[in-house]
Amino acid sequence: MSKRILVIHGPNLNLLGEREPDIYGKVSLDKINKMLLKIAAKEKVQLKIAQSNHEGEIVDLFGKAKTKFEVIIINPAAYTHTSVAIRDAIVASGVPTIEVHLSNIYSRETFRQTSLIAPVSKGQISGFGPLSYVLALEAAIDIIKSR
Amino acid sequence: MSKRILVIHGPNLNLLGEREPDIYGKVSLDKINKMLLKIAAKEKVQLKIAQSNHEGEIVDLFGKAKTKFEVIIINPAAYTHTSVAIRDAIVASGVPTIEVHLSNIYSRETFRQTSLIAPVSKGQISGFGPLSYVLALEAAIDIIKSR
Amino acid sequence: MSKRILVIHGPNLNLLGEREPDIYGKVSLDKINKMLLKIAAKEKVQLKIAQSNHEGEIVDLFGKAKTKFEVIIINPAAYTHTSVAIRDAIVASGVPTIEVHLSNIYSRETFRQTSLIAPVSKGQISGFGPLSYVLALEAAIDIIKSR
Amino acid sequence: MSKRILVIHGPNLNLLGEREPDIYGKVSLDKINKMLLKIAAKEKVQLKIAQSNHEGEIVDLFGKAKTKFEVIIINPAAYTHTSVAIRDAIVASGVPTIEVHLSNIYSRETFRQTSLIAPVSKGQISGFGPLSYVLALEAAIDIIKSR
Amino acid sequence: MSKRILVIHGPNLNLLGEREPDIYGKVSLDKINKMLLKIAAKEKVQLKIAQSNHEGEIVDLFGKAKTKFEVIIINPAAYTHTSVAIRDAIVASGVPTIEVHLSNIYSRETFRQTSLIAPVSKGQISGFGPLSYVLALEAAIDIIKSR
Amino acid sequence: MSKRILVIHGPNLNLLGEREPDIYGKVSLDKINKMLLKIAAKEKVQLKIAQSNHEGEIVDLFGKAKTKFEVIIINPAAYTHTSVAIRDAIVASGVPTIEVHLSNIYSRETFRQTSLIAPVSKGQISGFGPLSYVLALEAAIDIIKSR
Amino acid sequence: MSKRILVIHGPNLNLLGEREPDIYGKVSLDKINKMLLKIAAKEKVQLKIAQSNHEGEIVDLFGKAKTKFEVIIINPAAYTHTSVAIRDAIVASGVPTIEVHLSNIYSRETFRQTSLIAPVSKGQISGFGPLSYVLALEAAIDIIKSR
Amino acid sequence: MSKRILVIHGPNLNLLGEREPDIYGKVSLDKINKMLLKIAAKEKVQLKIAQSNHEGEIVDLFGKAKTKFEVIIINPAAYTHTSVAIRDAIVASGVPTIEVHLSNIYSRETFRQTSLIAPVSKGQISGFGPLSYVLALEAAIDIIKSR
Amino acid sequence: MSKRILVIHGPNLNLLGEREPDIYGKVSLDKINKMLLKIAAKEKVQLKIAQSNHEGEIVDLFGKAKTKFEVIIINPAAYTHTSVAIRDAIVASGVPTIEVHLSNIYSRETFRQTSLIAPVSKGQISGFGPLSYVLALEAAIDIIKSR
Amino acid sequence: MSKRILVIHGPNLNLLGEREPDIYGKVSLDKINKMLLKIAAKEKVQLKIAQSNHEGEIVDLFGKAKTKFEVIIINPAAYTHTSVAIRDAIVASGVPTIEVHLSNIYSRETFRQTSLIAPVSKGQISGFGPLSYVLALEAAIDIIKSR
Amino acid sequence: MSKRILVIHGPNLNLLGEREPDIYGKVSLDKINKMLLKIAAKEKVQLKIAQSNHEGEIVDLFGKAKTKFEVIIINPAAYTHTSVAIRDAIVASGVPTIEVHLSNIYSRETFRQTSLIAPVSKGQISGFGPLSYVLALEAAIDIIKSR
Amino acid sequence: MSKRILVIHGPNLNLLGEREPDIYGKVSLDKINKMLLKIAAKEKVQLKIAQSNHEGEIVDLFGKAKTKFEVIIINPAAYTHTSVAIRDAIVASGVPTIEVHLSNIYSRETFRQTSLIAPVSKGQISGFGPLSYVLALEAAIDIIKSR
Repeated sequence: MSKRILVIHGPNLNLLGEREPDIYGKVSLDKINKMLLKIAAKEKVQLKIAQSNHEGEIVDLFGKAKTKFEVIIINPAAYTHTSVAIRDAIVASGVPTIEVHLSNIYSRETFRQTSLIAPVSKGQISGFGPLSYVLALEAAIDIIKSR
Repeated sequence: MSKRILVIHGPNLNLLGEREPDIYGKVSLDKINKMLLKIAAKEKVQLKIAQSNHEGEIVDLFGKAKTKFEVIIINPAAYTHTSVAIRDAIVASGVPTIEVHLSNIYSRETFRQTSLIAPVSKGQISGFGPLSYVLALEAAIDIIKSR
Repeated sequence: MSKRILVIHGPNLNLLGEREPDIYGKVSLDKINKMLLKIAAKEKVQLKIAQSNHEGEIVDLFGKAKTKFEVIIINPAAYTHTSVAIRDAIVASGVPTIEVHLSNIYSRETFRQTSLIAPVSKGQISGFGPLSYVLALEAAIDIIKSR
Repeated sequence: MSKRILVIHGPNLNLLGEREPDIYGKVSLDKINKMLLKIAAKEKVQLKIAQSNHEGEIVDLFGKAKTKFEVIIINPAAYTHTSVAIRDAIVASGVPTIEVHLSNIYSRETFRQTSLIAPVSKGQISGFGPLSYVLALEAAIDIIKSR
Repeated sequence: MSKRILVIHGPNLNLLGEREPDIYGKVSLDKINKMLLKIAAKEKVQLKIAQSNHEGEIVDLFGKAKTKFEVIIINPAAYTHTSVAIRDAIVASGVPTIEVHLSNIYSRETFRQTSLIAPVSKGQISGFGPLSYVLALEAAIDIIKSR
Repeated sequence: MSKRILVIHGPNLNLLGEREPDIYGKVSLDKINKMLLKIAAKEKVQLKIAQSNHEGEIVDLFGKAKTKFEVIIINPAAYTHTSVAIRDAIVASGVPTIEVHLSNIYSRETFRQTSLIAPVSKGQISGFGPLSYVLALEAAIDIIKSR
Repeated sequence: MSKRILVIHGPNLNLLGEREPDIYGKVSLDKINKMLLKIAAKEKVQLKIAQSNHEGEIVDLFGKAKTKFEVIIINPAAYTHTSVAIRDAIVASGVPTIEVHLSNIYSRETFRQTSLIAPVSKGQISGFGPLSYVLALEAAIDIIKSR
Repeated sequence: MSKRILVIHGPNLNLLGEREPDIYGKVSLDKINKMLLKIAAKEKVQLKIAQSNHEGEIVDLFGKAKTKFEVIIINPAAYTHTSVAIRDAIVASGVPTIEVHLSNIYSRETFRQTSLIAPVSKGQISGFGPLSYVLALEAAIDIIKSR
Repeated sequence: MSKRILVIHGPNLNLLGEREPDIYGKVSLDKINKMLLKIAAKEKVQLKIAQSNHEGEIVDLFGKAKTKFEVIIINPAAYTHTSVAIRDAIVASGVPTIEVHLSNIYSRETFRQTSLIAPVSKGQISGFGPLSYVLALEAAIDIIKSR
Repeated sequence: MSKRILVIHGPNLNLLGEREPDIYGKVSLDKINKMLLKIAAKEKVQLKIAQSNHEGEIVDLFGKAKTKFEVIIINPAAYTHTSVAIRDAIVASGVPTIEVHLSNIYSRETFRQTSLIAPVSKGQISGFGPLSYVLALEAAIDIIKSR
Repeated sequence: MSKRILVIHGPNLNLLGEREPDIYGKVSLDKINKMLLKIAAKEKVQLKIAQSNHEGEIVDLFGKAKTKFEVIIINPAAYTHTSVAIRDAIVASGVPTIEVHLSNIYSRETFRQTSLIAPVSKGQISGFGPLSYVLALEAAIDIIKSR
Repeated sequence: MSKRILVIHGPNLNLLGEREPDIYGKVSLDKINKMLLKIAAKEKVQLKIAQSNHEGEIVDLFGKAKTKFEVIIINPAAYTHTSVAIRDAIVASGVPTIEVHLSNIYSRETFRQTSLIAPVSKGQISGFGPLSYVLALEAAIDIIKSR
């Protein structure tokens, strides 16, 4: 049984740690990635990680994911609220996708409280900072195992 | 350091396993509780579990939780969308609260896509069936540890 | 073939006859219940009747109804417009449910014109005063017979 | 005491039985009419039955009903949601009118969940298939008797 | 210079005088027509008067009006709020059209406060009972004269 | 029988004739006033005419109108859509009030299509340019006569 | 294989060529019909063409179409936006229906941008003037052929 | 003349003084009750005080209040915004009811700015902290005296 | 400690007692003012009272109030629902302001149920007729004392 | 070529410097006016400056501006969001008008984010404090020069 | 006369044939392109075909299209509902553009029923699967010919 | 003190001068850039200018701007109304940003009247054509100087 998981970090997440630390915390994206790779190594899961500020590139990533990954974890960031293209890409890929948010998006501005991604994702985890990713990775592994 | 966690199951969850198995799965509430207690034992956490169909009883539970629990995990079920009283009770208790849902509420009826609880909870986990509770328990333990 | 029917009267219906007689009529709840029991006796149907002002109690009634009743008749009164919990309880019970209203809710305040119960009920009868219950009982018996 | 009741079937009901049987059932309009006439004969009520796809013809029917009928039963079908003219005609006629629907309109498309007719009708019965008409006929007879 | 004016009475206006006299007054349509014909005779204007409960017939009237009438006066009644077809017919005819209402539609139900006809009519007169028609006739004559 | 009528011209109407002639025409306010006074003289009606750009002044005018005028004609202009104070003043005065507009407000911007004044006025006349005032004056005289 | 196609022209289309030529063009309905009949003859398709200003007549046409036509092409004109009855008639007929518009309805008034017909039609073609009908006829023939 | 007043404290008010002191102040419910009882004693009014987190219990309190109390003072707290049942109970009881809020609900979240209770209460007092109750008690006594 | 309080009566309140006595009562503004001055004298508070129908004048009053008054009591009447300028003036003045209404604004027209003033006022009292002012005066004195 | 510019300061701006300094800054209106007059002197432009809390006075100012000023600069303050009368006055005057705001109105309350003035003004400058006026004056001079 | 047509396939269309075949069919994009090129060859039209998942790339394509193509055919897919940039690009290019959809977007999710592209396109064809493209190509050729 | 300013031109602005000259003017982007560079040289400010049709590229520009620029001037064009990603990028960069528009966006289509960028920008300048950029540059320099 192959265990390949793709993690996609959406727009502006490259600035993590510097950007609005009150909301997003002080941990850098690099540190989160290392933490995830370590758990993956322990669980014998192959992890590919990508970051992009471009909606089209994220759509491309899903377009190529079909036969390459068992689960996708995505923090769609700002595109959560505006991208029908990524939504369609998730469905088109046919790969179960987990939506992750560092902050609790429901205690922020109104326009951040609607997710175009949520209705087509397997599940959501939000509000736990970097731990959100860790829990998503566990959920992803569980999904693969319980097939 | 004390590690006491309260788990609250909202209305109709007593029927789990029999009720709409397509949406909520076939696992009974009893089985979920046993699974959670087992993890708690392993992690040396005291777990109290309650189920109620009464909005007022759930408000009462929060009213008494202040000095007794470090974290509360709640699946507010139908009250997610209608109870300002439980929302106020969460804030009044001052205890960090994690919102859990078995199903992905965002792929269901419109009125189920608004949560009065989410803006005042620490974080949300939804869509993973019984695993949602397990992930919430891990998050709760993490919150206690990182104090 | 068993013929057991549960009739649930929602909040404030205990005051029937005294309460706003222009809208709800002068017949007391007791008189309606006697009328229904008389018809039930004639039709050889077992009738259980309950009244509650508590949303949670009504949810409890549905929770226990699954194997005990063939049809449920409910006048959800004020909870018609606010209770997702009772809606979920109806679906969870799996028992065909008939919604009844004494007054024509569509000629009253705007917030009374939306029913959370209607989409999950078998059918609705409203506007005929106590006769609404009688017609609902006939419909219930017809449902049982045509199984 | 005269007992004359007019039954009006709205647009597309002439196709009953063939049209979307999942929603409207397999019983033809002719069969429903015979069933109603039989009950009427037994109850010594004169029944006139009309079907029309034309909003204006239905308005005409009400315009002439004033002194000819004690009660009108109408299944306004598609005109339920769009016809202010039929609504005005009901009020203008001054004849108590009962609104009937074969299907439960509240569990269908959003635009079918608003009735322009309901606020001016005596009562509504919906969701019971052909039985809806039978119950409406009983209610009509009860209205005549209780004058 | 020809002076031909068409007066169209919309649905349910045939019942005028009997229908809801509190709102529409006790004067019959026949009496209003006679009053208008008398003024027309005095002003040497040819008046054609029509009443219809059928949206399609009113559309037909406009379809044939183009070369036959200088001004049209219409009381669209219930079709005021629902008929895009009559709106299109007014524009298609190219004949200046005056909208008339007996009652003040702005102090009635919400759905009566939107007029699909008003944006394409020359002007509106409402709220003066039968006098509304008289004023409209004067306005019509003024329009013809000031060409 | 006294016949005193107050005519109130709202904000910016002092500029009539110069201001946006495509919409409001080329006739000055002075000319309209002379025309009205001439008709009043002929009909033996006392006419008082006022113009104000100040909402408060218009409210003052109504405040003093109670025992001085039988009918008020108002072109509320921009205040049509924003002034609850003038609306209240109309009702408080108890004097029947006719709403007049030069242009057809229903074929203009959306925010001009709602009138706070209409629901409390006796009737409305709009779209006929200066003739709107003349028709309103006739209606006012008719109201006085038919007392 | 029979190839019978029904073309229905909705309200006011009888005035085509004269009516608002900026929007609808200068070609008359007669000319469009001849063009369609010529293509039909070439493609060996039987074409029946009807025009009506009456909603009820259009509903009747669908009511009788079931066994007589393989495809229906309709330009619902004004009824596009208001007729639930025609929508129901399309579904009730079971005949695949193509929606046609001469003008681009999406660049016009807001209320013309919602189509009650579109969700139940096979496809839509709009904005190409008379060519819209030609393309629809081709699509209709293709549907028949690809059965 | 009897002077019996019922004071009802809604959900979470038992936590007053501890709960969000920035918004609700530091005075405990017990202290407020003592203050009210003292004033009542001085004014020779019988005061009964109740607190409940249960919507149904509050409905019960109104159901039994009819012949026992002249005025009811209620701080409906969270139920202000969600309970049609309490609203109906107020009307059903027939007892004049005063709505009280400690905080200014209009400077808080949007969903707290709509009160289902206000339209059926005699008057509202909000924003003055514990003084809100004192003023309400005075108003209640005034209502009794001015009978 | 200075105790200066400004009372502002908004538009149309000069007509109190004559204007719609069903809603606003039969007591004149003069009488209310005398009552307030009497209480003020007893409580050794300086009271200045103003009435204006002009939004701008009320803004001026606040503009000059800063160093002259400790508390302002305002019945903004119609301007409650439309005046952002008065709202800004309240905040700009920095003087705690109490909003008063004679009638229960929440049981009236929809547009009267939104208050632009409430979110920036200290508290609201509405529905008790002239007593509303008395209670507001007491609250104002309490605010001064508890500084 | 004449260079006359009118600057209008709307309601509450007389309090600038004292009023909410976090939002509006600490510079007084007097100081802003001096700064503008200095620039005007340098650029050989005649500047007239006015401040008013009265909507009607601002309308008056526009009413007289037509032949007296080449450009108008207005900070409509609270009237930005409520005054159709000022909007109409701008259009009626025919003088190009520049809208100025000290604060960034788009990062404040929702009702401040809609401007009735913007659609009829030449351009807007907001968010730069007193500099907003300076930039507007430059733009005004540029408009005059580029004629 | 040059006959150059650009066909643009929007996001996720590269997956056609594999992606949700129930909705989009089993034909691959490659096959559609071959079909179009064949028709183009026969009609002596030059066809350029592009596919992109990037909103910016599609904007670029329009930016360069001005002097190179006579007509553009676009299936904007997910960007139909969110891209103001592509809408602006269509208008900026000045090239007549035809909007194409494989599926009937009006029978899908609500957010797919609004098209930002439709108001600025020449016409729309939707719901006929690959045939939609063929019909669009015919329409494009017709547009070129009828210049 | 360094004075580095970044100017970002959003989608379709590369076509300036050719594209809809009625709305955007006839000046090319190149000419605007030269004008800005000339002023920058005079004011001794370093200016970097970029244009992109890609939302992701604009996000990238902000991602790298943090330590390189003191102020950013952006004309977000079509992305003004749809891009949460650019909004987040502005906040994440921490660099004060000025929003510029050539046309008055408030006198155009409704969807162009909402700006996602405005709430997080320092200020806005719109409606002055190329002068909008010049004023923004002045404001930017003022911001740098007043640090």
